[in-house]
Amino acid sequence: MQQIGIGLLGFGNVGSGVVRTLLKNADLIAVRTGFQLLLKKIAVRDCQRERPVQVDPSLLTSDAESVISDSGVDVVVELIGGTDVARVLTLKSLAMGKPVVTANKALLAECGDEIFGEAERRDVDLYFEACVAGGIPIVQSLREGLIANHIHSIFGILNGTCNYILTRMQREGLPLDVVLKEAQASGYAEAEPGLDIDGWDAAHKAVILASISYGFHAPMGDVLVQGIREVVQTDIRAALELGFVIKLLAAIQHVEEGVAIRVQPALVPQDAMLASVNGVFNAVLVDGDVVGETLYYGRGAGADPTASAVVSDLVNVSRNLVAGSQRRVPALAKHHQYRGMRSTSDLLTRYYLRFTLADRPGVLAKVTNVLGRNCISIASMNQKDPLPGEHAEVIIVTHASQEHNYDTAISEIDQLDGVVDPTVRYRIEDFHRIESGRVALNGLLVGGVGD
Amino acid sequence: MQQIGIGLLGFGNVGSGVVRTLLKNADLIAVRTGFQLLLKKIAVRDCQRERPVQVDPSLLTSDAESVISDSGVDVVVELIGGTDVARVLTLKSLAMGKPVVTANKALLAECGDEIFGEAERRDVDLYFEACVAGGIPIVQSLREGLIANHIHSIFGILNGTCNYILTRMQREGLPLDVVLKEAQASGYAEAEPGLDIDGWDAAHKAVILASISYGFHAPMGDVLVQGIREVVQTDIRAALELGFVIKLLAAIQHVEEGVAIRVQPALVPQDAMLASVNGVFNAVLVDGDVVGETLYYGRGAGADPTASAVVSDLVNVSRNLVAGSQRRVPALAKHHQYRGMRSTSDLLTRYYLRFTLADRPGVLAKVTNVLGRNCISIASMNQKDPLPGEHAEVIIVTHASQEHNYDTAISEIDQLDGVVDPTVRYRIEDFHRIESGRVALNGLLVGGVGD
Repeated sequence: MQQIGIGLLGFGNVGSGVVRTLLKNADLIAVRTGFQLLLKKIAVRDCQRERPVQVDPSLLTSDAESVISDSGVDVVVELIGGTDVARVLTLKSLAMGKPVVTANKALLAECGDEIFGEAERRDVDLYFEACVAGGIPIVQSLREGLIANHIHSIFGILNGTCNYILTRMQREGLPLDVVLKEAQASGYAEAEPGLDIDGWDAAHKAVILASISYGFHAPMGDVLVQGIREVVQTDIRAALELGFVIKLLAAIQHVEEGVAIRVQPALVPQDAMLASVNGVFNAVLVDGDVVGETLYYGRGAGADPTASAVVSDLVNVSRNLVAGSQRRVPALAKHHQYRGMRSTSDLLTRYYLRFTLADRPGVLAKVTNVLGRNCISIASMNQKDPLPGEHAEVIIVTHASQEHNYDTAISEIDQLDGVVDPTVRYRIEDFHRIESGRVALNGLLVGGVGD
Repeated sequence: MQQIGIGLLGFGNVGSGVVRTLLKNADLIAVRTGFQLLLKKIAVRDCQRERPVQVDPSLLTSDAESVISDSGVDVVVELIGGTDVARVLTLKSLAMGKPVVTANKALLAECGDEIFGEAERRDVDLYFEACVAGGIPIVQSLREGLIANHIHSIFGILNGTCNYILTRMQREGLPLDVVLKEAQASGYAEAEPGLDIDGWDAAHKAVILASISYGFHAPMGDVLVQGIREVVQTDIRAALELGFVIKLLAAIQHVEEGVAIRVQPALVPQDAMLASVNGVFNAVLVDGDVVGETLYYGRGAGADPTASAVVSDLVNVSRNLVAGSQRRVPALAKHHQYRGMRSTSDLLTRYYLRFTLADRPGVLAKVTNVLGRNCISIASMNQKDPLPGEHAEVIIVTHASQEHNYDTAISEIDQLDGVVDPTVRYRIEDFHRIESGRVALNGLLVGGVGD
């Protein structure tokens, strides 16, 4: 039986999952594919470290380049993470004509032009299913299963850490910092949680999904990114009362003028499929012009789910090696059917706004006055009677207005005398398809009016 | 740009969708793939008939064989349906070494051994994404995306017609025959609805999913098939009160001894993702040993969603033609990692039972007595006070017992004096994973005890 030699760069959490899967299901993968995936070398920082899965110590090396150049290694799996060493080694492997499988979303989102470009120039495979939504085969589904479709929009719950935190806050009534600490203790959140809870990880994944859907590398700089640090119990309870749940939602939407990408906490209607995606699970809702809505759901992180995606990529690359069909599906098939990125500043959006105001006459009037002047009209307003000495929390749900109107209004409001804390805002998402650029409720506006 | 010639067999509903998609998104598909999919010939029964999509009349022919043998046709798309002409033409095409894309689930489920065998013998591609769950790329996800996984189970809502009927019955309180008639009038159900509402269509799809997951062609004869004809409002309301909704559910489950396939109306917990799959939508919940649970959701039927799947298959086959990598992914990679089919008769299952009894003393006692003697113990029982002159309807929810115990008990009960109508039974599904063959609640039992 033909053998494909695998070289791993990195043997951390995901690396252990990949090794465990390759060992555990070796026979099954072999009978399904007709070849064997053989672990040849593993680059590690410390060869002596204890690991959750045992391998022959002779496979380990601290010299990552020797893994790439090893003649027995047919495919390189990059699991180091980050954009420094991982970038250099990925480029080196591609330059040598060796296919790369990667789980490194930051690398592809930040340096996609360079990495995708090198894969194309060297005519070599680059697979990255594990970069988005863990074990869910969303990359292959978008690139292959839905290839006949013009993609109207993609809405995703793409960060398991944030979804875990928001789910526990909602179910247990706990504040964010308590849940975050527990999540860190149990391994659901990093010691340095900013990448996740400030929305950057979800933005990396959104950029990858957008790139493969629209045929150009979407630059991170054009993505509107807002994390979940401001979410408090008041918001979660108010959202529930309004018929919503709060999710960190990535939205990739197409209009005639291009592609807009936003990652924001969003109020999602309770009867939407995405509202029932809880805990560490991820889900991606894709709206294609031929297929309509499809949704993909599963564990978005963790050693084993990610390993499932990495090994499926390994099989895909290996099939290409066996059949001589490298770049049968290009990593990024560049084209110009779409007009590039579009600014989010004139997106038409409904918002949930929370104001913390001094409890005295006239403050709220000033706030609503500023909203009105900025073409933001109010759909509903709620203020609970504050306890003596407390500030008033006012929650306003708006009708749709352009993003820049909110920017202007809120920066003005936050300067007002009597406005105690910075205004908090979360998008209200109703998943309307944007047919022509002009939308009923939420989404994108083409040269339209405020309300 | 390279061109791939397409020959269509059949130009009905799905055929029109395929043609519409090939025309509408031709440019997009071309820039994404680097080749053009060109419609060369279409076999129809009546060349004069009006069709919802216009094509050059010279493409049409009533001679199907001429489509297959046309030297300009590189890929044949079989959209005739049924197992007669479609079987002959599919085999002919494969025998000529011409790849086939098919949406014909009945053909693959009923004649899979022959069709898959011929594809293997002739070393030619056979793709069938459109056979299961319309536009959802579930076949590719199982064969490729989840290839690293041993599949514990697959639960699917696979028939859009049944799901549409059950959803409307639940939402509108209407009886089945009224909803069915309306569904027929609006095109959601066939004039001859048996294939759908008696469960056979879902069983065909389940057989295909099982075959690609377990590496052998699962015979239809070993599938337990029960349709939805018996579902009445009493059941739907009782299920809701118990915290469930009724779905026609296909269950493919693996235990040490093999694979069991069942299609039955089932009570699904209201908080399960599958419970929120409504109307004509389909969903498939896959439990893999590495990835855990993943779910795939979308429109399960209709011209366009099905066309999305057909065209994605066309692209896959064309990529193989271009790269010279035919059978890169075999239609059915046969192997012997699993022990074949397993009888459903000793599956451990909880059931919802509805008895229609004469309203007089002692009848219910006789019924429960028979259940007890057959190792079926009662979890809950509900009887509404019947109106004078009416029969009593008794609903019993059981603890888990083996399928054959229910068979024996019910055939005995239905003979009892005072039992007015045949007993109605629906499975209660809680989606427990079967780790070792012995299960907590619902699923399969290996040599176990009744309760």
